[in-house]
Amino acid sequence: MSLDIEKLRSETPGVANRVHLNNAGAGLMPRPVLDAMVGHLTREAEIGGYEAASEAAADLEGVYDSVARLLGSGRDEIALTENATVAWQLAFYSQTFRPGDRILTARAEYAANYVAFLQMAKRTGAMIEVIPDDGNGVLDQDALDRMIDDRVRLIAITWIPTNGGLRNPAAAVGRIARKHGVRYLLDACQAVGQMPTRLEELGCDFLTATGRKFLRGPRGTGFLYVRRDLMLGLEPPMIDHFGAPWVAPDRYELRRDARRFETWENNYAARLGLGRAIEYALNLGLGKIEERCRTLSAQLRDGLRTIPGVTVQDLGQNPASIVTFSIKDHDAESVRATLSHSGFNVSVSYPSSTLLDAQARHLPALIRASPHYYNTEDEVCRFIAAMSKAVDA
Amino acid sequence: MSLDIEKLRSETPGVANRVHLNNAGAGLMPRPVLDAMVGHLTREAEIGGYEAASEAAADLEGVYDSVARLLGSGRDEIALTENATVAWQLAFYSQTFRPGDRILTARAEYAANYVAFLQMAKRTGAMIEVIPDDGNGVLDQDALDRMIDDRVRLIAITWIPTNGGLRNPAAAVGRIARKHGVRYLLDACQAVGQMPTRLEELGCDFLTATGRKFLRGPRGTGFLYVRRDLMLGLEPPMIDHFGAPWVAPDRYELRRDARRFETWENNYAARLGLGRAIEYALNLGLGKIEERCRTLSAQLRDGLRTIPGVTVQDLGQNPASIVTFSIKDHDAESVRATLSHSGFNVSVSYPSSTLLDAQARHLPALIRASPHYYNTEDEVCRFIAAMSKAVDA
Repeated sequence: MSLDIEKLRSETPGVANRVHLNNAGAGLMPRPVLDAMVGHLTREAEIGGYEAASEAAADLEGVYDSVARLLGSGRDEIALTENATVAWQLAFYSQTFRPGDRILTARAEYAANYVAFLQMAKRTGAMIEVIPDDGNGVLDQDALDRMIDDRVRLIAITWIPTNGGLRNPAAAVGRIARKHGVRYLLDACQAVGQMPTRLEELGCDFLTATGRKFLRGPRGTGFLYVRRDLMLGLEPPMIDHFGAPWVAPDRYELRRDARRFETWENNYAARLGLGRAIEYALNLGLGKIEERCRTLSAQLRDGLRTIPGVTVQDLGQNPASIVTFSIKDHDAESVRATLSHSGFNVSVSYPSSTLLDAQARHLPALIRASPHYYNTEDEVCRFIAAMSKAVDA
Repeated sequence: MSLDIEKLRSETPGVANRVHLNNAGAGLMPRPVLDAMVGHLTREAEIGGYEAASEAAADLEGVYDSVARLLGSGRDEIALTENATVAWQLAFYSQTFRPGDRILTARAEYAANYVAFLQMAKRTGAMIEVIPDDGNGVLDQDALDRMIDDRVRLIAITWIPTNGGLRNPAAAVGRIARKHGVRYLLDACQAVGQMPTRLEELGCDFLTATGRKFLRGPRGTGFLYVRRDLMLGLEPPMIDHFGAPWVAPDRYELRRDARRFETWENNYAARLGLGRAIEYALNLGLGKIEERCRTLSAQLRDGLRTIPGVTVQDLGQNPASIVTFSIKDHDAESVRATLSHSGFNVSVSYPSSTLLDAQARHLPALIRASPHYYNTEDEVCRFIAAMSKAVDA
């Protein structure tokens, strides 16, 4: 059975107001996600914050199960975090590097991660090296395989970069990492909720993601997967008494599960919203979601390519549901503002968010349109028409 | 004019359901705080997460002004964080220590902070030393003054510890820190919202606090104050491209304000709730709030002292609005559960949350009752009656 788009739209308040093509920024929350959050916040006001958390304890524990089901991990391998960046930081900064150790990354790596590499390099003398691409912008697996020696401490890449439809071969990288016994940190921020994200295929040691994008969860949510065998050897970069209970005056004891990376206090309403969003996606089926995203983003790219002056900037075969493009003689931010006035939500991807790739390809600021399964073919047509008009202006 | 308690209670949904004496855990949110959050989340669902943040941009910037007004700081000296612990960690872990450097703290220091001291000591060879108390449990200012030498890198104390009414002399510590030119990190988690918290008196270099306790804001909110003169010399322990934009392939540039400690993605609904909570407290006046808290907590202590078998465990003169006590032959957790059934919210303070103090005083788990200005004398009487009954049981 295919997705019942009309039903799914009826559960999505935002589609009445906007043509939302900014799912790579933040997806429109479906009503059950909103209700979960509003319900919990209301309960906090009614009976108290700790008392409401206590009452919702089983549901709050269930969020770990939801993430584990999404990824195919153990629940003990999951930490919930404030956002995907914090999840990534906790994994990355718990690695130890010595001078000359090598960190391998991809050309379109996200700015958040790259500045952390730079800080670590400054702090420890580690070196950052960019894995070549295959000429189509996709990470070159053979090149990666050849780069690996015993100074490579970490492979850290973004699966679906923020600035276009490029899909790096996350699973192939996992096979290479496993073969050489090198640690592998995968930023899956733009992948979760858009396609199946199963650890048994990916073979990564750490995976980080956000709730707010294609998962359609709340802002200010993220999660971290940590492979169980590595857990006990990882000292989180910062600790409190939740992750590391104070057991004797001179001693703390780190938890044995991934929650050693968490802190005591959390936004529980947001966590419940995240859990609901994941269950919503799992109920629909990530395979079906991916197929629908593929259809709509292909329609969008094909349509954009018919408009004179528009250049679609997505790299690679089989692109994901992030479509970026530039328009000759038009500034991306102005076009975005014009579209917004007409009810179309898109975003702008600036060179500084993927600086290496932007410089290598001489990219200006790009307009980014990222459809999701609840968008319609008609919305895509209207968007293309609006773009044609904007280009003529 | 004194506080209009009836009006304030009418704005507090929770008072209809519970006698809430767990403000040191999380205060009951007033309706304007709840409304600010629900309103923003609803708007996110209606028009999109980024689009709603954009629409609320002025209000979101205003949250920094609210914190700055609360503390008497510049707005550039404020970072908003996921919680108070993260705020504290960002300040603490940005300090550098060498072997033999001394960290001075107080006996009732909070577990979250102490385990971080222990991790830092293990990592760098720094030493943790506890400032003696004056015999009443209060930090001894003269002893602190005598302890300082050129190996003291940091004084880090909790103003109002979690396990009782003790009020450490935060301002006096500030004068000593200034005199010797030693950095001073103040954990003001239980102070903000309960009393005036003005930096010109406190003289600290870093102050950290939460939204959810006496400020009556949302769970999952906190903030950090960083003194402006220190800012440019502080490298945050972890960075992303929000605090440290990626300006050249091999270089990031830290922001010049306290937001160098923040990350890109946030829970904006929670931030708006925090801002609303601060404005609510400022409108009432922190002086009046403190006076009312003093009245109610004194009534509570006096009443508890009349119950045979109850020992009030608060230390120091002039205690704050956290009242902890033990009951002979009664387990704190069972008493808490019994009280909860009768509609009274209190919490239990376990020895592990303030281990040094708990061991020094041989404290068992304590019952913690923390009234706020919106509680009534009648509620306190009913609570004392309920306690008497629980003790007889």
